[in-house]
Amino acid sequence: MAADPHMLSSDAAGRAAASAEPALLEREDRGGVAWLWLNRPRAYNALSEGLLGALHAELDAISRTPAVRAVVIGGRGPAFCAGHDLREMRAEPSLAYYQDLFARCSRMMVLLQRMPQPVIARVHGIATAAGCQLVAACDLAITADDARFAVSGINLGLFCSTPSVALSRNLSRKAAMRMLLTGDFISAAEAVEQGLVNEAVPPEQLDATIEALLARILAKPVEAVSAGKGLFYRQLELGVEGAYQLAGQTMACNMMEQSALEGVQAFIEKRPPKW
Amino acid sequence: MAADPHMLSSDAAGRAAASAEPALLEREDRGGVAWLWLNRPRAYNALSEGLLGALHAELDAISRTPAVRAVVIGGRGPAFCAGHDLREMRAEPSLAYYQDLFARCSRMMVLLQRMPQPVIARVHGIATAAGCQLVAACDLAITADDARFAVSGINLGLFCSTPSVALSRNLSRKAAMRMLLTGDFISAAEAVEQGLVNEAVPPEQLDATIEALLARILAKPVEAVSAGKGLFYRQLELGVEGAYQLAGQTMACNMMEQSALEGVQAFIEKRPPKW
Amino acid sequence: MAADPHMLSSDAAGRAAASAEPALLEREDRGGVAWLWLNRPRAYNALSEGLLGALHAELDAISRTPAVRAVVIGGRGPAFCAGHDLREMRAEPSLAYYQDLFARCSRMMVLLQRMPQPVIARVHGIATAAGCQLVAACDLAITADDARFAVSGINLGLFCSTPSVALSRNLSRKAAMRMLLTGDFISAAEAVEQGLVNEAVPPEQLDATIEALLARILAKPVEAVSAGKGLFYRQLELGVEGAYQLAGQTMACNMMEQSALEGVQAFIEKRPPKW
Repeated sequence: MAADPHMLSSDAAGRAAASAEPALLEREDRGGVAWLWLNRPRAYNALSEGLLGALHAELDAISRTPAVRAVVIGGRGPAFCAGHDLREMRAEPSLAYYQDLFARCSRMMVLLQRMPQPVIARVHGIATAAGCQLVAACDLAITADDARFAVSGINLGLFCSTPSVALSRNLSRKAAMRMLLTGDFISAAEAVEQGLVNEAVPPEQLDATIEALLARILAKPVEAVSAGKGLFYRQLELGVEGAYQLAGQTMACNMMEQSALEGVQAFIEKRPPKW
Repeated sequence: MAADPHMLSSDAAGRAAASAEPALLEREDRGGVAWLWLNRPRAYNALSEGLLGALHAELDAISRTPAVRAVVIGGRGPAFCAGHDLREMRAEPSLAYYQDLFARCSRMMVLLQRMPQPVIARVHGIATAAGCQLVAACDLAITADDARFAVSGINLGLFCSTPSVALSRNLSRKAAMRMLLTGDFISAAEAVEQGLVNEAVPPEQLDATIEALLARILAKPVEAVSAGKGLFYRQLELGVEGAYQLAGQTMACNMMEQSALEGVQAFIEKRPPKW
Repeated sequence: MAADPHMLSSDAAGRAAASAEPALLEREDRGGVAWLWLNRPRAYNALSEGLLGALHAELDAISRTPAVRAVVIGGRGPAFCAGHDLREMRAEPSLAYYQDLFARCSRMMVLLQRMPQPVIARVHGIATAAGCQLVAACDLAITADDARFAVSGINLGLFCSTPSVALSRNLSRKAAMRMLLTGDFISAAEAVEQGLVNEAVPPEQLDATIEALLARILAKPVEAVSAGKGLFYRQLELGVEGAYQLAGQTMACNMMEQSALEGVQAFIEKRPPKW
């Protein structure tokens, strides 16, 4: 993937290429946060192979960069993300190609959970099909209150099977099934109610809301955040006793970190921790 | 079961019997949809062995009839369904009988998920015990806004154990536990809020709302709907990586269908698909 | 644990010790209900080793006492429970100690589900960290409408890993993750909306609301309640077919109980059951 000429990134050192084409994925790093911008505005940020590859590569690089403390994924132009690039998909009608494409997309979605940094979806416009999946697969999501969400593949005869994996782990079954079978949009308010996103705010407050959320998260020690995020998803796949065993181990190790020992000590002494 | 004289069906070809008794289960087929009507109005449509058998047989027959695209389950008379037939149950107090009865009922509930067609519960009046389970086990549910829901077996000393399987996969734990331990009714509005049904509408709009929902679903290619429904429930029982593997395979096969290739092509050409 | 001098209990026969110190855990039994009161008011009922041990021992004793039909857990003083005792934890910074501490706490939380009696959390003031976990781990929860909830360990550098096990089985993923990553409080109203508690009422109605809920539960036969509660949590960890098999067995056995046979008979005869 490193050789993909589309895998441009505005900030990732050493990977900016001397190309006239705009980057499919833009990255802005500030204050320990990597803001990733899907940048195919005319295509509603459809996840072409190039964009999917760039996103996976960037997330993978970030996952090995402790200096990056959190990630925000947003979209340039009128939409967050409209799912797969249908023109590209239609051009290569072979089972092997589709298997590979969905497998790559799934690996990126799983990476969102596996990587140590919290990932926040910044949603505006529309989030459809794999774009809606992307929202569901992020740890947190803040949306503009005029955004809309759908798993609309069924309208073209393509049930959103891979999006259903993430969707059904966020919404109740009947709400997810209705979206999947009808392809209908839900509003931002419904998305909040049903658990797909954390909060809907007026578009002009979107970035400030995310910045405030980031500030809350960045104030915590990185060890606790990354170990905790990893534990959260792993324990969800275990029975309650196995989950507690894993969680107890994780928490005991966390408590032995200097940051936790200092944090608890500071709490006892009623002073701010020295981190 | 085929020999059961109660297993009458108004439409299923070749199975209408020359009987004076009204059918326990009525079936009306129109526009590719099988409307199944529980028809023991004086018994609040309690699921007697006869009705349970008829419902299972009808669903089984439908599951092998591709011309039927969707199923609606409703009830004749004042109630949707009041659960098992207690008079019948009480008449045969043996462990083996009860084991067999609940196993048969569970098989019918599982069949609702296994069958390729979407199944919509059309709820009015009350849905209690196994009747409430029936709502929970359907893919989608639309209710009259004056309907009420309970898992009320506990009021007779019989905890709704089998209903709890479906209920706890629709509602949050504490909401489900409260219903199971108290036997108390919840309103249609609460049922919507808690995820048990999709929507509550005034009784006079119940059928129109369901017809509109059906129209949305019937407009999609059958291959996508049936493969997608099956995938949805199977992936729910897997860890996230196994779920994505299965979903990716399902979606790749779906994409190779002529209907999906045409649907995507039509989308690209900005025209309606020719299905 | 039986030798722990702090493990005082006001009612548990034979275990009251001749000590001037107030009991860490008070117990009041009335009408078949054990009201357990966390009693370290100045420490916001932090779960010290002593209190944790007392709570586990008391729950364990109750679990083997069929005369106790239900349990309520509340807190003395301004708060329900503020989680672990940080002073105590900080005093013994060793991995083995923390592993043991979290394992003991987890066993208590699992016991809440394993014990045959329903357990209701009676929340007021604040429920934080393991205190919030305690709410999540109870079968039911009623809260004062001015109470607040948080998993706030992350503020000290300690991700609430063990609390996340219970929290993530009550709330949607994104809601749980937000609480865990930010440490922020949610209101009682939000706790109801998100599934953490059943109901929020004005503080002065808290006990009356719980009494009314208890009355509903105590009116049911004990066999049905205890078998049903056990089944509920076990089936949640199974696939749908295994869940139905277990539930069908449980329900068949339940139906063979004299109380259920009489309950159903009474229903048929339109009279109250003679239990």
